Amino acid sequence: MNYFFSLLFSVITITATSQSIKIDDEKALVDFHLTALTNGKSYEWLSYLSNKIGGRMSGTTSAEKAVIWGESTMKEAGFDKVWLQPVTVPHWERGEKEVAYYTFNNKKINVPICALGNSIATQKKGITAEIIEVKSIDEAEKLGNLLKGKIVFFNVPMKSSNLRTGTSYGETAGIRVNSARIIGKYGVLGVIIRSLTTSLDDFPHTGVMSYRNIPENEKIPAAAISTNAAELLSKHLKENPQLKFYFKQNCQNFEPKQSYNVIGELTGSENPDKYIVVGGHLDSWDLGQGSHDNGTGVVQSMEAVRLFKNNNIRPRNTIRVVLFMDEENSGSGSIKYATEAKAKNEIHLAALESDSGGFTPRGFSIDSNQKYFELMQSWKPLFEKYGIYEFFKGGSGADTSDLKNDNILLVGYKPDGQRYFDYHHAASDTFDKVNKRELELGAAAMASLLYLMDSYLD
Amino acid sequence: MNYFFSLLFSVITITATSQSIKIDDEKALVDFHLTALTNGKSYEWLSYLSNKIGGRMSGTTSAEKAVIWGESTMKEAGFDKVWLQPVTVPHWERGEKEVAYYTFNNKKINVPICALGNSIATQKKGITAEIIEVKSIDEAEKLGNLLKGKIVFFNVPMKSSNLRTGTSYGETAGIRVNSARIIGKYGVLGVIIRSLTTSLDDFPHTGVMSYRNIPENEKIPAAAISTNAAELLSKHLKENPQLKFYFKQNCQNFEPKQSYNVIGELTGSENPDKYIVVGGHLDSWDLGQGSHDNGTGVVQSMEAVRLFKNNNIRPRNTIRVVLFMDEENSGSGSIKYATEAKAKNEIHLAALESDSGGFTPRGFSIDSNQKYFELMQSWKPLFEKYGIYEFFKGGSGADTSDLKNDNILLVGYKPDGQRYFDYHHAASDTFDKVNKRELELGAAAMASLLYLMDSYLD
Repeated sequence: MNYFFSLLFSVITITATSQSIKIDDEKALVDFHLTALTNGKSYEWLSYLSNKIGGRMSGTTSAEKAVIWGESTMKEAGFDKVWLQPVTVPHWERGEKEVAYYTFNNKKINVPICALGNSIATQKKGITAEIIEVKSIDEAEKLGNLLKGKIVFFNVPMKSSNLRTGTSYGETAGIRVNSARIIGKYGVLGVIIRSLTTSLDDFPHTGVMSYRNIPENEKIPAAAISTNAAELLSKHLKENPQLKFYFKQNCQNFEPKQSYNVIGELTGSENPDKYIVVGGHLDSWDLGQGSHDNGTGVVQSMEAVRLFKNNNIRPRNTIRVVLFMDEENSGSGSIKYATEAKAKNEIHLAALESDSGGFTPRGFSIDSNQKYFELMQSWKPLFEKYGIYEFFKGGSGADTSDLKNDNILLVGYKPDGQRYFDYHHAASDTFDKVNKRELELGAAAMASLLYLMDSYLD
Repeated sequence: MNYFFSLLFSVITITATSQSIKIDDEKALVDFHLTALTNGKSYEWLSYLSNKIGGRMSGTTSAEKAVIWGESTMKEAGFDKVWLQPVTVPHWERGEKEVAYYTFNNKKINVPICALGNSIATQKKGITAEIIEVKSIDEAEKLGNLLKGKIVFFNVPMKSSNLRTGTSYGETAGIRVNSARIIGKYGVLGVIIRSLTTSLDDFPHTGVMSYRNIPENEKIPAAAISTNAAELLSKHLKENPQLKFYFKQNCQNFEPKQSYNVIGELTGSENPDKYIVVGGHLDSWDLGQGSHDNGTGVVQSMEAVRLFKNNNIRPRNTIRVVLFMDEENSGSGSIKYATEAKAKNEIHLAALESDSGGFTPRGFSIDSNQKYFELMQSWKPLFEKYGIYEFFKGGSGADTSDLKNDNILLVGYKPDGQRYFDYHHAASDTFDKVNKRELELGAAAMASLLYLMDSYLD
């Protein structure tokens, strides 16, 4: 694009920011957006969390550092009250980097894999066995005892055809979570899962798996394989179904540990004991920097509240930022928060969660009664000039859904999702994948919604 | 984000792709999107154009290669007719990489600069002079003869506050295009322009400048400086206003050359002599790979028409892909196309241009009479389920606006623009910055609009 065209372009688009401001709501939204874009803190905060602290799995030293950072950042930003809510979290660590390879046509093929969260290790020397490719847990179950002594390779691509990548993830993630648990009983030695991403790349994407309550002797190790390596392995298996696959992983479950949800408040002027929550999760997987998942949600939640302060807007109700610990492994932070809120009979009016990445804002996913759903629709025109059009029924997020009752408005912040699974749970989820403006526009959109919630809910 | 939440998410979003298809229009849009996402060609084509051909300035050998590639690609895709339209283009080359530095506190500071397109070189040994920072052409003009013997540094940041980055670009680009021409008469030795991007990075962003008809002796060299270096230089100038800045550039204007617009057609079944144009520009700047600007527009235009063929949809009118040469330097390709179309009395019903990057689709910019503007609005509901909501009045693009008359529907494809100027005209405009799904969704949106134009225009 060159200059001459852009001048034309600018004439029509400038109206988007310069239309007359008639009411307080419109003015607040303008102020939030201007402040976020010209004097925002979210990007600087995310840089620190990503580059200085990095990946921060529950129970690790990095997660502890993130807790201290979250607390001090909200204190420095001038929140009225900041404290730590103790929570016992699982503690699983990857240990030494995984190794996998096989030989094909006398050539050693190294395979990028990573252990799935919560998986057991292989034996120390690793596992070598024939590997059987299947397309579903059903197919594996039908093979049953024929799988004995084998490694099972679930080569199920995340579908490209769904418009929303989250849909495809939802359709496929059950294999990652459940397959090892279900087929361990057939004497399988281990499972290798195709990474959950529509992109073809060389990163294995981790994520949680679960054994639930199966006997110890049915537990088998589970790892993710990169999509490129899965394609190649599948091709090689067609030519040599007997090829022997080797993998070794060194992960370990340690004793649960004490950690914390980090909570900061802006006290309400009218109803200090009624709460609106905004949050994301502070923990992340270990492979990358946890930037999109969920550093962006953490910094956007803090920034949304800082935007109130920065614009001298005192909320009527108390707005509470919650940086939840342990979303990825067991959800202990969200359970703790909800349980304690209930025990204290705290009135929660609404909760807004950001855990879908730091991309350009597109809309909000709404989990509420019909009255609140319609209230949200009535705010839509205020958001449309910021390019936010999608107000649809759906879940709010893993960390806020425990607060569900008949009288709460639960909302998930929903940015553009096309790139999210390129980075999700992989070493590629790093700071450089986050665009400053997209992140800031998200924080402004969240502040805007909090403002409206605070103004119209009682 | 973890698995459990996503399942909730999927339940509500899956409806976006599975609603009942009642009419041909809806079915065509579904088919285009499915084909683009599961069996598309645009990403593979863009990889070749970016990685095998690379930057392709008008008049260069790479641009010639791009012409041959465009022609053979459309032939291989089975277009009914493919041909080259000769056009004489300017031929400017950068030559040896530019050098710039200054000394501050006895330390040599190397400065990333690049010559602006069409600029003259410095003298061979370069230029050393005091450098004066200004904030506008007006400010420089007021200084007038005080600028004699100096280098002038236009340190004008592209505004962060506009929602649309194109607005900010339009507000600032005049400095890049015009400053050297306007202030050369004061005996200025050269101008250094802050790069046109809201991001802080180390890439100088080039782009066209113009001397128009000023006398030879008023022509002075013009270069862009990276935003990080501009910030640093500004800081250092505050401490030492006398510091001497050195720069050297080796660019050169050669004789104009013969090149080509590359044109491919799918012949209309009812009105073969009525045309709907879809296009982008084949040339690019030389610093990167010209991936977003405008490789994406090129491959999306070809893909949009291939999606008709792939789904066995024969258009009523002739759909013509035009890969315009020389958008960046002088617009000779678009002028040639429009002039020839007029000379031949060709009836053009509509033109759709993609020259705003290969990001997630957001909408269309419409330049037409009121009747067509309203026709476009009537198609909006068909696009909303694909996340496309913005149908607004504005220019179509630099390459199609020459076709303007009272009876043509001119449209610009408008994807999300937050990241566009991070890469625009810089070495960072490379293939890895393009997301496959975002690119493909754009091609499908363009095919969808072409289908509706073809169905409803006569």
